[in-house]
Amino acid sequence: MLRSIISFVFIGFSGLTVAQPAVSTDTASDPRAVILIIGDGFDDQHVTMGRNFLAGHDGQLVIDALPVRAAVQVQTEGKNTDWVYVADSANTATTLATGVTTQMGRVGTSASDKDLTTIAQRAHAAGFKTGIVSSSSVTDATPASFMSHVSSRGCENPDIILGGELYSLAYAGCPQDATSNGGPGSIAEQIMKAPIDVVLGGGLIHFTTADPTSGKTALEMAESQKITVVTDPAMLAAADSNKRLIGLFASGHLPVRLQGSDGRVAEQPDTSALNKLDWRLGSVTQPDPITCEPNPAYSNTPGLAELTQVALDRLTQPDGKGLFLMVESASIDKESHVRNPCGSLGEIAQLEEVVSVALKYAETHPQTLIIVTADHAQAAQIIPEPSLYAEVPVPVYSPGHVARITMPDGGLMTINYATNGFLSEEHTGANVPLFANDVGEGLLPGFLRQREVHDAMAKFLGL
Amino acid sequence: MLRSIISFVFIGFSGLTVAQPAVSTDTASDPRAVILIIGDGFDDQHVTMGRNFLAGHDGQLVIDALPVRAAVQVQTEGKNTDWVYVADSANTATTLATGVTTQMGRVGTSASDKDLTTIAQRAHAAGFKTGIVSSSSVTDATPASFMSHVSSRGCENPDIILGGELYSLAYAGCPQDATSNGGPGSIAEQIMKAPIDVVLGGGLIHFTTADPTSGKTALEMAESQKITVVTDPAMLAAADSNKRLIGLFASGHLPVRLQGSDGRVAEQPDTSALNKLDWRLGSVTQPDPITCEPNPAYSNTPGLAELTQVALDRLTQPDGKGLFLMVESASIDKESHVRNPCGSLGEIAQLEEVVSVALKYAETHPQTLIIVTADHAQAAQIIPEPSLYAEVPVPVYSPGHVARITMPDGGLMTINYATNGFLSEEHTGANVPLFANDVGEGLLPGFLRQREVHDAMAKFLGL
Repeated sequence: MLRSIISFVFIGFSGLTVAQPAVSTDTASDPRAVILIIGDGFDDQHVTMGRNFLAGHDGQLVIDALPVRAAVQVQTEGKNTDWVYVADSANTATTLATGVTTQMGRVGTSASDKDLTTIAQRAHAAGFKTGIVSSSSVTDATPASFMSHVSSRGCENPDIILGGELYSLAYAGCPQDATSNGGPGSIAEQIMKAPIDVVLGGGLIHFTTADPTSGKTALEMAESQKITVVTDPAMLAAADSNKRLIGLFASGHLPVRLQGSDGRVAEQPDTSALNKLDWRLGSVTQPDPITCEPNPAYSNTPGLAELTQVALDRLTQPDGKGLFLMVESASIDKESHVRNPCGSLGEIAQLEEVVSVALKYAETHPQTLIIVTADHAQAAQIIPEPSLYAEVPVPVYSPGHVARITMPDGGLMTINYATNGFLSEEHTGANVPLFANDVGEGLLPGFLRQREVHDAMAKFLGL
Repeated sequence: MLRSIISFVFIGFSGLTVAQPAVSTDTASDPRAVILIIGDGFDDQHVTMGRNFLAGHDGQLVIDALPVRAAVQVQTEGKNTDWVYVADSANTATTLATGVTTQMGRVGTSASDKDLTTIAQRAHAAGFKTGIVSSSSVTDATPASFMSHVSSRGCENPDIILGGELYSLAYAGCPQDATSNGGPGSIAEQIMKAPIDVVLGGGLIHFTTADPTSGKTALEMAESQKITVVTDPAMLAAADSNKRLIGLFASGHLPVRLQGSDGRVAEQPDTSALNKLDWRLGSVTQPDPITCEPNPAYSNTPGLAELTQVALDRLTQPDGKGLFLMVESASIDKESHVRNPCGSLGEIAQLEEVVSVALKYAETHPQTLIIVTADHAQAAQIIPEPSLYAEVPVPVYSPGHVARITMPDGGLMTINYATNGFLSEEHTGANVPLFANDVGEGLLPGFLRQREVHDAMAKFLGL
């Protein structure tokens, strides 16, 4: 899209003509918008899984048609060593939000526990409208890193911030951040006070959990005259446009759109007793194919594209300065952790729909920078069906879990999850893809670090 | 780099001035060069492994500075289904060489066993000089697909083409392609006759294996007056520049530059007896760290960059039409198959050096299109060190093989190989990266299929 109009001014006399470009500043005062779309765990294996499933073997995704494509190096400070080579969503979202690299688990704080001002906070201070939309709890690491500052991502509500038990493990919490200790409070409390005009996602439980000291929940602490809280998507349209809007549509993360037939996820290949004794002997039975189908639990859940549209409608003001909006498709990653490729695929479809909404918005708001990226790579791998070594008279199979997905255009796409044998897979360390619309041309080189994605957005908004 | 000079022609009188761009054709007759650099298995996990190891946590590779970066969808025709989602080096190199998708194992032939003319063959017919350089046997799938046409990649020499035993398995060969059956002969025989001016790599064994019918080897079949064959790199400089040059510097693939300390590769974590009974119990001991060190077997091997320079020197003719050169760093993939990350890392270093040679060449030959890409993704994954779940009181470890590499700038980078438990890992199905110099701008979009990489090169050469 043409963002600046170059005209030529000719200064000439008696045959001598000199051309000088004059850049029109017509659009300099137009509102500027940044729409940052994060696919959690959306690395090149997941991008390809999504393309194969959603667009077919020779198709392409909406993101594939974007003119800017780059690779982003993910950087993570270690706790015992200078650097580690695999990240989590907290440190990466913090880097995207603040331009500062930090340690895993940290939300909006540096490795020395300093609070880092986020691009959303700075945008708001500079007069931009701000929004955060996620299919996770809005207190989860990615959205939280744009709105709050705690030393550990688990400190989502006023109870757990004081420590206790999390995922059946003793958890230290972030007592220094607790309101009762003079800190800014848990993530939920900080969101209630954050300069974010629209916050949409899941996580109601964290707003209705009471601070054991004051007995108050984050919701009760809110200045209700300034915030509209909705829990029913049908109430979104009626929400007072002069107040901040917080929409919480599930107790925890929003349900995902797709599931495997019979609720199945990746499974371990079934090996014969003889094979268990000697890997060269016996036989193996691969899991039966899985068909991806609608998840009944999703039926009343607002779509991520719908929430994105609500946010854009509320944040757009004809005479305003513009907006910063972060939208996360969170469960590409969460479903990959639990080895559910159908779950991830449905959330890739949701991400694609969000990109379409953003592109539509940019048609009428040309100063809109759309960036799509991932925070870190994830465990899933597309592996051959059958094995490259199918002709070898030895059972050849994944040592992890595999799901063989029946594809809409025929054949089977087999996904391997084999980073560990625990209940939840590991992240991986590959650089992640970045896609941007034409507004990103010249602003985003083909290779950059995650902090430089932040810097480019900040530069575009003049922050 | 400025490839066309645009001047403005002004046609004006009495105040009216009209500007029309006139494209200079000054460079249209300059020689054109395509240097296609294939990193076998060089997917984003391997690119990141290489960056972390060679350039440090905040560094960047030579390829990262290239202005064009794209993702390439890898497509493979199935034998029983229309499409499969993971490729091998034969079908992908065939697609890059011919623009036609085909089935795994096929070298320069379509799914219906039709011989496909390669870009190297067409370039030569159009007056370009041509070269193929690889760190594998030059008869291996990737180089072979630019120079020959057989139904199965194993048909590397006049003996095995008739069938027999390959990798301890019965092998049908490609009898219809055998010279004794009126076919074009094995890959080695076809290379001796191919319109390729320079062929450098390994694979001498395939040229010295006799046809059981005629008793002749591929070397003996050569018209020696037209070909110089060298097996000692020191003889390269003296090779007659008026003859075709075939350099074969190892019996099979060229040795790789690096190995793990004590020859170690990735190993299975060592679990206690209790853990073998119940995954939640007992303990695990991760393999000791590995340091990457020079491989003694490599010491007299010519470097891939050196071979690339030899090829460029021979193929460049001041008044010629230009050249097509394919250079493959083959053992990024081969070492990943055998779970040797140090081996892969050394070959990524070699690929980087080749890119530097190509960029240097382009400085004085501005009409040079440099493309770096992979043929398919591979098994290696960078996983967390320690596990994301290190605090869980359960042993958490990879079900596959891991190597913990001591990094030059501190810390450990852990590589996981877990696509199968066989002697050789599987390829994976992610789209692969593509990098190009400024000459590729406008020619190579951010997303393309492998056949479109071929089409762009052919278009650039006017084929």
